[in-house]
Amino acid sequence: MSDSTGAKRVTLLGLGAMGTALAEALLAKGYGVTVWNRTPGKAASLVAKGASQADSAGAAVAASELVLVCLLDYQSVHDVLCDAQPELAGRAVVNVTNGTPGQARELAAWASERGATYLDGGIMAIPPMIATAEAFFFYSGAQAVFDAHRDALDVLGESHYLGEEVGLAALYDLALLGGMYGMFMGIAHAYALVGAAGESAGSLAPFLARWLVGTDAMVVGTADRIDRQDYTTDVVASLAMQSAGYVNHFVAAEEQGISAELLAPLDPLMKRLVAAGQGHADMAAVVELLNTRKEGNR
Amino acid sequence: MSDSTGAKRVTLLGLGAMGTALAEALLAKGYGVTVWNRTPGKAASLVAKGASQADSAGAAVAASELVLVCLLDYQSVHDVLCDAQPELAGRAVVNVTNGTPGQARELAAWASERGATYLDGGIMAIPPMIATAEAFFFYSGAQAVFDAHRDALDVLGESHYLGEEVGLAALYDLALLGGMYGMFMGIAHAYALVGAAGESAGSLAPFLARWLVGTDAMVVGTADRIDRQDYTTDVVASLAMQSAGYVNHFVAAEEQGISAELLAPLDPLMKRLVAAGQGHADMAAVVELLNTRKEGNR
Ligand SMILES: NC(=O)c1ccc[n+]([C@@H]2O[C@H](COP(=O)([O-])OP(=O)(O)OC[C@H]3O[C@@H](n4cnc5c(N)ncnc54)[C@H](OP(=O)(O)O)[C@@H]3O)[C@@H](O)[C@H]2O)c1
Ligand SMILES: NC(=O)c1ccc[n+]([C@@H]2O[C@H](COP(=O)([O-])OP(=O)(O)OC[C@H]3O[C@@H](n4cnc5c(N)ncnc54)[C@H](OP(=O)(O)O)[C@@H]3O)[C@@H](O)[C@H]2O)c1
Repeated sequence: MSDSTGAKRVTLLGLGAMGTALAEALLAKGYGVTVWNRTPGKAASLVAKGASQADSAGAAVAASELVLVCLLDYQSVHDVLCDAQPELAGRAVVNVTNGTPGQARELAAWASERGATYLDGGIMAIPPMIATAEAFFFYSGAQAVFDAHRDALDVLGESHYLGEEVGLAALYDLALLGGMYGMFMGIAHAYALVGAAGESAGSLAPFLARWLVGTDAMVVGTADRIDRQDYTTDVVASLAMQSAGYVNHFVAAEEQGISAELLAPLDPLMKRLVAAGQGHADMAAVVELLNTRKEGNR
Repeated sequence: MSDSTGAKRVTLLGLGAMGTALAEALLAKGYGVTVWNRTPGKAASLVAKGASQADSAGAAVAASELVLVCLLDYQSVHDVLCDAQPELAGRAVVNVTNGTPGQARELAAWASERGATYLDGGIMAIPPMIATAEAFFFYSGAQAVFDAHRDALDVLGESHYLGEEVGLAALYDLALLGGMYGMFMGIAHAYALVGAAGESAGSLAPFLARWLVGTDAMVVGTADRIDRQDYTTDVVASLAMQSAGYVNHFVAAEEQGISAELLAPLDPLMKRLVAAGQGHADMAAVVELLNTRKEGNR
């Protein structure tokens, strides 16, 4: 939908840290942006930059064919879209709110019953990265929506369409976020440990950055072992050796007066594998234990 | 100590995956290397490359002033060095076996009582990285040992001397390893999640690698907040938002039939901070909760 000046229009529901960044990126590229937020005051800076502020979610949805939704969670998405039901027919809803594959499937069905087409999205960026080369987005669901509105989506970051199965974007998004939270847990433990010994975090940081970037070969190596279902060839750091050394994290934490709770869950998994005769295998074998539907896993 | 040909001599105790890599690197640089391993057969390939195999740990220690120790854990180090007590006087013991700061301090005192000088080391590399630009080592303890044997140590990887406090190398080593294990937990969770939906690990790997390298700004940003003791300014991804979204990891895991146990420990920490009114803060605030000696932490 274009307005009288020919500019493409986008509606954005939700002006938190992320929604604001998305709106700013679209405004900067000359899009006509209609915004709505529960707390209306948050729109002020965007209005000053040329955005139109709608009085209600329904009025915002009515304003553009493309409706971007960036709210806190699916509960808020349901709250907001319920109020805009009459206006949804014919709209292309692109929801980039973080959620689960199941929530995406449910919302897609709900939107479809109301005559809207639905594309789900996952934002792999923090707000300052939006519209930079670092940002990328996952999308899944209606390919027609992705194709028709690709120009607007590409403004926000590199777009990756994963397929019609609408849960895929949330699946990939949560997988990467899970990877990041794991990394964060490791980082937090590391700084707590050296901090308790009176060392500044800054003195560890350059080493930690170098080490984590270097060990990112683990990302590819682990994937390769999983896909080949082979955890035993070319093992340079065996589960047995790593499991034997893991206790040092708990002993050192105790010595320094910190809690090792963030590293705790890996210990029993390694021990189970070693006890099951897989001490010669690679750490990647841990992944097999997480699938609760596999024979032998709880 | 140099032999009749003038080559510098090094003794190596322990020929596991790592000890073997260290011995090979020294042999390749022309060092005279005396090796000993509990299971003697593991020395064969090194002997073929010019290493001398000692009949006992004591004989190995007698052969060189510099004695590198690379065994499974401190229990094995004690077992092996006990058998070599008479030969220890005058030796420079460099122990790169993984352990805790307390274990390093204890061993340093024990070695000193037997007339040896002691340097503790931490290996930040896997065996294939030894003697490449990627490998680095932490050292702490007797600076005289570090200075006198720096040439041999530099063969193995980039050497970083952290100070006379002998526990520092183990502290930094465990901090980086803890960071890596956290990252591994995240990676394992990520692959288990997509795998349970029938997606190959390889299809996620390029995105995960890019994402984790990109989010390594978290390493420096988190350190900065910790050292400034300020978790509130310029927050682009608030604890409140992240805590609200964290449940999605558990719901999605349940939907897909995997266990989210590796991501579990972060959840209660975030919730505690939000409940304490720190929802507007950055995730880095989690580090404060890990110090069990701080007021208010269990
Ligand atoms: N920030 C990031 O780094 C980042 C990165 C990737 C993805 N994301 C995702 O992007 C989404 C938004 O994140 P954010 O950082 O913008 O969060 P935020 O700053 O906390 O903003 C939350 C937004 O949701 C609205 N909201 C919450 N509950 C509502 C309800 N019941 N009804 C109506 N509106 C409601 C808020 O409105 P009020 O202003 O009225 O409170 C606000 O617009 C989340 O799903 C998040 O996971 C964020
Ligand atoms: N591999 C890595 O990626 C890596 C990376 C960084 C640091 N490290 C550290 O390097 C050290 C060695 O690791 P690795 O990979 O070489 O382990 P490994 O392959 O399992 O080798 C263990 C070594 O310890 C010896 N050993 C174990 N118990 C003993 C005992 N009671 N008495 C005498 N010798 C004993 C073994 O002798 P036998 O041959 O007789 O069993 C073998 O030489 C560990 O502290 C590890 O944490 C390893």
